[in-house]
Amino acid sequence: MNTSKRTEISTIGEFGLIEHLTSDITCTNKESIKGVGDDAAILQFDNENEVLVTTDLLMEGIHFDLTYVPLKHLGYKAAMINFSDIYAMNGTPKQITVSLALSKKFCIEDMEDFYDGLKIACQQHNVDIIGGDTSASITGLAISITAIGTASKGSSIKRNGAKETDLICVSGNLGAAYMGLQLLEREKIATAGKDIQPDFAGKEYILERQLKPEARKDIIERLRKEMVIPTSMIDVSDGLSSELMHICKQSKVGCRIYEERIPIDYQTAIMAEELNLNVITCALNGGEDYELLFTVPIADHEKVASMSDVHIIGHIVDQSMGNAMITRDGVEMELKAQGWAIESAE
Amino acid sequence: MNTSKRTEISTIGEFGLIEHLTSDITCTNKESIKGVGDDAAILQFDNENEVLVTTDLLMEGIHFDLTYVPLKHLGYKAAMINFSDIYAMNGTPKQITVSLALSKKFCIEDMEDFYDGLKIACQQHNVDIIGGDTSASITGLAISITAIGTASKGSSIKRNGAKETDLICVSGNLGAAYMGLQLLEREKIATAGKDIQPDFAGKEYILERQLKPEARKDIIERLRKEMVIPTSMIDVSDGLSSELMHICKQSKVGCRIYEERIPIDYQTAIMAEELNLNVITCALNGGEDYELLFTVPIADHEKVASMSDVHIIGHIVDQSMGNAMITRDGVEMELKAQGWAIESAE
Repeated sequence: MNTSKRTEISTIGEFGLIEHLTSDITCTNKESIKGVGDDAAILQFDNENEVLVTTDLLMEGIHFDLTYVPLKHLGYKAAMINFSDIYAMNGTPKQITVSLALSKKFCIEDMEDFYDGLKIACQQHNVDIIGGDTSASITGLAISITAIGTASKGSSIKRNGAKETDLICVSGNLGAAYMGLQLLEREKIATAGKDIQPDFAGKEYILERQLKPEARKDIIERLRKEMVIPTSMIDVSDGLSSELMHICKQSKVGCRIYEERIPIDYQTAIMAEELNLNVITCALNGGEDYELLFTVPIADHEKVASMSDVHIIGHIVDQSMGNAMITRDGVEMELKAQGWAIESAE
Repeated sequence: MNTSKRTEISTIGEFGLIEHLTSDITCTNKESIKGVGDDAAILQFDNENEVLVTTDLLMEGIHFDLTYVPLKHLGYKAAMINFSDIYAMNGTPKQITVSLALSKKFCIEDMEDFYDGLKIACQQHNVDIIGGDTSASITGLAISITAIGTASKGSSIKRNGAKETDLICVSGNLGAAYMGLQLLEREKIATAGKDIQPDFAGKEYILERQLKPEARKDIIERLRKEMVIPTSMIDVSDGLSSELMHICKQSKVGCRIYEERIPIDYQTAIMAEELNLNVITCALNGGEDYELLFTVPIADHEKVASMSDVHIIGHIVDQSMGNAMITRDGVEMELKAQGWAIESAE
C-alpha cells in the first residue's frame, strides 16, 4: 500500500471518493449509454430495449449484524435493494448474479436459509438467478449482488431531468427502517448475555421495514397506468435529504420541501419519542426506506395527488435558491446530505 | 445462524455448495437463455445479440496478499480475470461494474493505484467502467467485479458442446502463475522482518503470469479469422484438470490428454525443480493461468495444429471411458479436480 503519501478517505467521504476515482472515466462503447452516477447504468444493444445494471456489495459488520438479522431475511433484503435500484430507473428487474464469501462459521444450512430468502424475493418479482461465485473469507460474510433489468428504449428515468416547478413526490413513508434498526440495536444491548427475549410488541411494522424492505414495483405500475412520467427518480437508500440532493445536483436545480408533508408512520414517531430522537431528522437522514422519490411536471398534480401511497412533499426551484426544508413554523432550513447528522440533532 | 443442524461446507466443497443451492433454480424469463453453470450467463434481449454476464468476488487474505501484490496490479488482474470469462464464451467484453469494500488502512492514493490498474486493463480491451459501489469493511479489501459482454446470436460457446473425437486444445502454457505465487510466498518468508530485497532474478516471466495475467482476446480473434468454431470452451482459472472435468461433465463425455503435450514454460519447470514440486501436477491443478481451454472438431486439426500458441493436448472420448492423462511412460492416470492434490504429489 501507499506509504509515500497518504490522504485519508474520510477527508472526502464515500461519494467524494467515487467521484474522484471515476471523474475521468468516459464511455467509449456505443452500447454504454449512461455510466457511473445513477441508480443503474443504462446499456443499449439494439433499437428497442435498454438494459439496466446495478450492483451492491454488503459486508458483515458494516451493512448487517447477524446477531439480529436472520439469514433468510438478509437474502431477501439483498435481492430487494437491487430490484429497488432497477425500479428507480423505471425498469423491470429480470436477472441477478449472487456472489458470496463465507468464513468458516457458516454451514450449509445457513446458506440454504440465505438462498431461501433470495428465492422468495426473486419469485415475487419474477427475477432469475443466473450466476455467481462462492468463495472463502477470512472474516464474516460478504455478499455481492448485481441486478439486470430492462426498459423500453428511452423510457429509463434518470436523476437529471427535474425542472423548475416540478412537484417532488415520495412513496410510502420515511424513517421507519432506521427506527427499526435503532430498536434492534437497543434490544441487542438489553438482552446481551441475559436469558430474556427482546421486546418488540407493537413495533412489528418498523422491524419489518428494517428486516424485510419491499421494492416499490407497485408504484412504478401505478405511474404507468396513470400515464405519469416522472422527470427524475431515485430510490431512498441513504435518506431523503441525500437522495433529493443527488436529484438537484444532477438536474442543476434547487428544491423546497415541507416538513409537515413528510410522510411518517405512527410507529416511527412513537419509537423516535421513546429514544428521544427528532423524527424528521430520522426521516431525512435515516435511510434504507427503499421508497421511490421522484419529480413530476406540475400538470400532473391532480393525478399524483389522487394516487394512494404517493405524497407530494414539495417542488423544484431555481438552482440559485438552494435546497431547503420549510419547517412547521415557517423557517427555511438548508438540506444537507450528512452535515445535518442524526447524532447532533437530539 | 443455524444452530439446530449444522453441516460443514467442507463436506461438499465450493462446487458442491453452488450446485446444492442452485439445483432447483430454473429461469422463467424468456430473456434468460443460460443461467448458473458456465463462465458467464447468456441473456438475450433482442434477435441479434446475446448479452454475457459474469461476476467475481475477490477477498483479501483469500484471493490476494497485499504484502506482495501491488494495488495497481490487483486492479489490472481483477478486471482481466472477468474479461477472460467473457472471452471464454466467445464474447467481447464491453462493460464492468466495480464494487469495493475498504477497511481504514486504505487511503485515497491506494484506491488511485487500484483504479489505475483497472483503467489500463479496460483501455486495452476497450471496456467501459459503468458503475459500482464503494463502502466500508471491518477487515481488509473486498472487490466485486461484474463484466458484461456481447456475442452475436447463437455464437456463445458453452461448456457442454464437446463431442467424441473432438480435439482438446489449450492456449499459452500452464502452471506459470502458480509457480509465480510459490516464488512470491517463498520470498515473503525469506525477507520477512529483514532489510533485504526479494530475489526474483531470471524469474520475471512467472511473476508476471501471477501478478499481471492477460485475457486471451488474441486467441479468440485468431479462431474467428481461421473460422474455427470450438465446440466447447472455458478459461483456466482453477487448473487444467478441474476445467477439463467441467467440460466433460457438462458435455457428458470423457477425455484423454497426454502429459508430454501439456505446454510448460522453462521458468515454470526450473521453479518447480527448485521447490521440489512435480511440474505436471502444478500445470494440472495450479490455476490462475487464464488460458483458454477448448475443443474443436477433428476436421479442424490442420488449422489448430498450425496456429501459434495453441496446443493440441488430447481428445474427447466416450463418457464411459472416464477422464485420464496418459503419462510419459504410457500409464493412464485418472484426472481429479482436487483429489490429485499438489500437497500430496511431491
